[in-house]
Amino acid sequence: MGSVYGENIRLTIFGQSHSPAIGVTVDGIPAGEHIDMEELRAFLSRRAPGQNAYSTARKEADLPEFVGGLFEGVTCGAPLAAIIRNTDTRSGDYSNLKTVPRPGHADYVASVKYGGHQDYTGGGHFSGRLTAPLCIAGGVMKQFLAAQGIQIISRIAAIGGVSDNGALTESTAEKEFPVVDDVQGEKMRARIAEMREQGDSVGGIVECTVLGLPVGLGDPMFGGMENRLAQIIFGIPAVKGLEFGTGFGVAELLGSENNDDFIMDNGVVKTETNHCGGILGGITNGMPLTFRVAFKPTPSIAKVQKSVNLLEGQAEDLVVRGRHDPCIVPRAVPCVEAAAAIAVYDALLGRRKEN
Amino acid sequence: MGSVYGENIRLTIFGQSHSPAIGVTVDGIPAGEHIDMEELRAFLSRRAPGQNAYSTARKEADLPEFVGGLFEGVTCGAPLAAIIRNTDTRSGDYSNLKTVPRPGHADYVASVKYGGHQDYTGGGHFSGRLTAPLCIAGGVMKQFLAAQGIQIISRIAAIGGVSDNGALTESTAEKEFPVVDDVQGEKMRARIAEMREQGDSVGGIVECTVLGLPVGLGDPMFGGMENRLAQIIFGIPAVKGLEFGTGFGVAELLGSENNDDFIMDNGVVKTETNHCGGILGGITNGMPLTFRVAFKPTPSIAKVQKSVNLLEGQAEDLVVRGRHDPCIVPRAVPCVEAAAAIAVYDALLGRRKEN
Amino acid sequence: MGSVYGENIRLTIFGQSHSPAIGVTVDGIPAGEHIDMEELRAFLSRRAPGQNAYSTARKEADLPEFVGGLFEGVTCGAPLAAIIRNTDTRSGDYSNLKTVPRPGHADYVASVKYGGHQDYTGGGHFSGRLTAPLCIAGGVMKQFLAAQGIQIISRIAAIGGVSDNGALTESTAEKEFPVVDDVQGEKMRARIAEMREQGDSVGGIVECTVLGLPVGLGDPMFGGMENRLAQIIFGIPAVKGLEFGTGFGVAELLGSENNDDFIMDNGVVKTETNHCGGILGGITNGMPLTFRVAFKPTPSIAKVQKSVNLLEGQAEDLVVRGRHDPCIVPRAVPCVEAAAAIAVYDALLGRRKEN
Amino acid sequence: MGSVYGENIRLTIFGQSHSPAIGVTVDGIPAGEHIDMEELRAFLSRRAPGQNAYSTARKEADLPEFVGGLFEGVTCGAPLAAIIRNTDTRSGDYSNLKTVPRPGHADYVASVKYGGHQDYTGGGHFSGRLTAPLCIAGGVMKQFLAAQGIQIISRIAAIGGVSDNGALTESTAEKEFPVVDDVQGEKMRARIAEMREQGDSVGGIVECTVLGLPVGLGDPMFGGMENRLAQIIFGIPAVKGLEFGTGFGVAELLGSENNDDFIMDNGVVKTETNHCGGILGGITNGMPLTFRVAFKPTPSIAKVQKSVNLLEGQAEDLVVRGRHDPCIVPRAVPCVEAAAAIAVYDALLGRRKEN
Repeated sequence: MGSVYGENIRLTIFGQSHSPAIGVTVDGIPAGEHIDMEELRAFLSRRAPGQNAYSTARKEADLPEFVGGLFEGVTCGAPLAAIIRNTDTRSGDYSNLKTVPRPGHADYVASVKYGGHQDYTGGGHFSGRLTAPLCIAGGVMKQFLAAQGIQIISRIAAIGGVSDNGALTESTAEKEFPVVDDVQGEKMRARIAEMREQGDSVGGIVECTVLGLPVGLGDPMFGGMENRLAQIIFGIPAVKGLEFGTGFGVAELLGSENNDDFIMDNGVVKTETNHCGGILGGITNGMPLTFRVAFKPTPSIAKVQKSVNLLEGQAEDLVVRGRHDPCIVPRAVPCVEAAAAIAVYDALLGRRKEN
Repeated sequence: MGSVYGENIRLTIFGQSHSPAIGVTVDGIPAGEHIDMEELRAFLSRRAPGQNAYSTARKEADLPEFVGGLFEGVTCGAPLAAIIRNTDTRSGDYSNLKTVPRPGHADYVASVKYGGHQDYTGGGHFSGRLTAPLCIAGGVMKQFLAAQGIQIISRIAAIGGVSDNGALTESTAEKEFPVVDDVQGEKMRARIAEMREQGDSVGGIVECTVLGLPVGLGDPMFGGMENRLAQIIFGIPAVKGLEFGTGFGVAELLGSENNDDFIMDNGVVKTETNHCGGILGGITNGMPLTFRVAFKPTPSIAKVQKSVNLLEGQAEDLVVRGRHDPCIVPRAVPCVEAAAAIAVYDALLGRRKEN
Repeated sequence: MGSVYGENIRLTIFGQSHSPAIGVTVDGIPAGEHIDMEELRAFLSRRAPGQNAYSTARKEADLPEFVGGLFEGVTCGAPLAAIIRNTDTRSGDYSNLKTVPRPGHADYVASVKYGGHQDYTGGGHFSGRLTAPLCIAGGVMKQFLAAQGIQIISRIAAIGGVSDNGALTESTAEKEFPVVDDVQGEKMRARIAEMREQGDSVGGIVECTVLGLPVGLGDPMFGGMENRLAQIIFGIPAVKGLEFGTGFGVAELLGSENNDDFIMDNGVVKTETNHCGGILGGITNGMPLTFRVAFKPTPSIAKVQKSVNLLEGQAEDLVVRGRHDPCIVPRAVPCVEAAAAIAVYDALLGRRKEN
Repeated sequence: MGSVYGENIRLTIFGQSHSPAIGVTVDGIPAGEHIDMEELRAFLSRRAPGQNAYSTARKEADLPEFVGGLFEGVTCGAPLAAIIRNTDTRSGDYSNLKTVPRPGHADYVASVKYGGHQDYTGGGHFSGRLTAPLCIAGGVMKQFLAAQGIQIISRIAAIGGVSDNGALTESTAEKEFPVVDDVQGEKMRARIAEMREQGDSVGGIVECTVLGLPVGLGDPMFGGMENRLAQIIFGIPAVKGLEFGTGFGVAELLGSENNDDFIMDNGVVKTETNHCGGILGGITNGMPLTFRVAFKPTPSIAKVQKSVNLLEGQAEDLVVRGRHDPCIVPRAVPCVEAAAAIAVYDALLGRRKEN
């Protein structure tokens, strides 16, 4: 089972790229939580396709219909359930993918795993489109967290070898193209435009920070905040790496450099540095929780690629038709935030009434 | 809940560094599996302390006693249960950690999370010693996997800025200090020796490969092999980063470079390259499953560090007494293999009899 | 979390009596299973309201729309998802239930549990209407089981003190009013008609048998077939008792009477009697799995009842308006079968490919 | 997986009747809970064998050793883990059970399920002895509940056709042979003594009540208190029926009789009657939670029974050797309380800090 997440909530994502609808159910949300639908729509528009020059031309409203879990606009204790109708689909574009799998996509493994019964149109359940219901659930929980003073912000840290500079702040996160250094941002956009022209694609890195977390969130071992975040972050298509705080950089540091010394700051225990990314032993220490996510270049490219014909058992060149992003990273930013919101909200619900 | 892992098995790790025993239970293991106790002991000795020049002086047999789940040396369908007695403990070494938390350790967050009731001696349930029961379970499952033709091998990819060269093979994995390039290995050992002298520590990277996996293992979204591995790998103390295949390197590649073209190889579908690390859409594609794990430097160092006295609410210098590894990476290698074995074995059990 | 069930599948039921839709998602169903939509509609019609003289006048098509999980009419490995639109709702009928809870209903406990945010219209998420998605999922799995030679049959064992005679067989289960002894069946119908006239209601017992199960299904302790069935059967509204085989009758038997002696029957191990209801130590023994379910009388009755006004904190008489069944038992029969199908199918998926 | 229970805790029971040890681990218990070891020992002695005239002669101290989860006698946040060594075992008594299964026992189904690898000595993991770790966990949680004002009491409601009279109170529950009517109790004891002489056995019913529960405990559908209790109660060997409140009796009541009218009692909402057993829609309503559990007669009897030789595939008479209770009901009383304590404690931990 892959499409279910959560310890204290139980979230299920359903639907395929070209099935009648996609959607999400979430059991375990406490009653009495308000959802601001306008804010949710604004959040969802950040990942919606067709919004700007650097994303696919497929346009869909992608507005969710909440079919359960709300009463008079407020969560009522029943599972939250929302669907999005699939309207703008062109199944014909994908007809050859059943026998000639796209490199970098799940076509081949799905064919083997599901014995040929997989929905191969548009990537089926593996489609990036399934991040829409993830963003519905995550967008809603982001609001619930904000009401508790917890903010989730993120930026594009790198695209195609071009890195952002400076430190992530809330004002950066609010930008339409969220980078600190807009000059670097322009270079990134240029890289994307270049890729679009070449029919190629490029990868990048998203950096995310969670502010306002209490000390003590998360559990030892497999229930640590890193584990919880990793389990959902790797559920976003194209993610190939994840690091917390200084991440892979710790491999080159000395203990005396990497240890974050404790200090008292106006009666509050803090650390002088934050190499650990706000997590010690899997548990939040009250400092900003920081992590970085590596995204591979969109595997759908316009260039001729080498593949195999699964029926004939021989090599066959493939040209992937359809509309595709030359870089998924800008649209992945809200997905990372949504995933983080879900993991953090789920962990918060695990705090016992008893303690 | 943090100390429980698994979808098709249910693994629980229990005990604290200085409690009467540590151990592991695993429900869901099929009956009829043989355990080679000699092989298990050899595996466990790879993570045992006191084995060599570059690890802590604490010596324990760390031999597990299987108290349930076996009948005449074979799994019988009941939960597998094993314990290790804690014998060589010096609680006195840790007495000041209740009020003055060690930088880089879980002392402070545990104190807040558990309201002062945490077992702070020797790191309690957060101690690296709890990787012993992880290695018992993982060592057993590694045997079960080997019986199915699945090998898990690993090497030290880097320590303290010194990187290994070449490609990981089984013969490398069998070395006492598993690196391809023994010259680089000598430099790594020198780094560790240097750290021991300086009372400091150093981090590193472990690389792991799983060979012989069938195509189709893993599930979409949150049940992908990356998600499954991540959830357990981040449960090993000191892990701060995880990447699959080319990992963070994909952020700088073009789609046309990063996509692994499909080829036919003697009637078998393979890929020409393996940037994806054997995983597409979360599901194995039959190529070697590869990943790299970043370990921070051991936080316990002999140097004076800045901390705070939690009772008095003011700064206090801390000297961590006790015996500690200047580099955890060599002993972490079998832990990574054990974690990988557990995740892979659990995923394999999810293959339905029906398909 | 209450609306999620399953070990090897993960089933979530969502929606409220008067929300835009109700529905169900099921992750974990293997790919390649065919669904016969006509057969499913026939099964669902057995629980649908307004079908006959002894049920409520509320009429709804209750035809499910499958929005995910199918591709060309066959399960494709993605979560199965179906919704039913709520169309014929009269929210006004229930307006006083917010402050004056109905005896025998969940109104009061929901009010306390959800802090006044519960959807009280039509019983909200506690409505018997939520058995429709249960029957969608169960109807589908009943088909999957039948394809493996496993039949689930049931009958009305008693209504309002009138008991059926004889033994349950498949031909009885196919009747529109499933009793062996039609004379007793007429008396039951007369009891129901009498209740309708009196504005009262009456309870009863449903008996269910699962035929064709393999030996060895179920797990020890909390994973036994009794446990699995109990966990879902008690999820059907109005169930207050559950017994397997001879059930409460065993309390009066001697061991020498109750033990089912083993015999060889054409090379197959069977038992001479079946007091154990086909389950030993939680695990199927190849004999018919039998159980009985006690249903309380429909709590919605037309008579004046004593209740309290939660706002004013004082007694208040209540007249429940709306349309209600004088006996839920006939419509509960397919619900019991659906629940049994889900529990059995889930257990079957747990059989490992390995053994 | 059968030996794991819980939503907010994760409880695993391990060991076999004759393995080195049996035990239990429980993850998820909040830190800071005190365990009174004397009280726990007194509770465990109620289920211990060899205590009195009506139970088996097998004597074991059955004192648990807590090997993890406690620090200075208080829960510390790590999983609670306890073991009991198996000392007084006579494996030889059971040697023929591998090929000639005992009627009424799990021998045959275990043989099929585990492919002949089952631990058949003493019933293996299916042995009633495994209720000892259940009682350790339940005894501990019963203490935690008592500290919150929640009492779990029970009585023997019937043995071998002899029923108790009157209503269960705390003073009854404290009796060594817990019945209200001691005359009936004497008749029950006489029945047991008679069975011992005859080499036969007899079943019975245990009634249990949970006092002091808050309103609103439990969840809709599959998370109701009935579901939660049923899932664990059917894990006690020999249980074949479970009913809440009036139970199967509701099948003969009218709605106007069975509905529990709401009343105000000193500002508290109560019900005049308690046919529902304190549960509406799966959720507690503040009245005593009551249920009854049917136990079959001990299947191990001294009489010659008909069985089959699994190797030879033909009938074979069986005489079960060893020491057995002629009636398990008296020793089952604390097991029912333990199971109830675990289910209730687990549900209580699910109350969110947020509401």
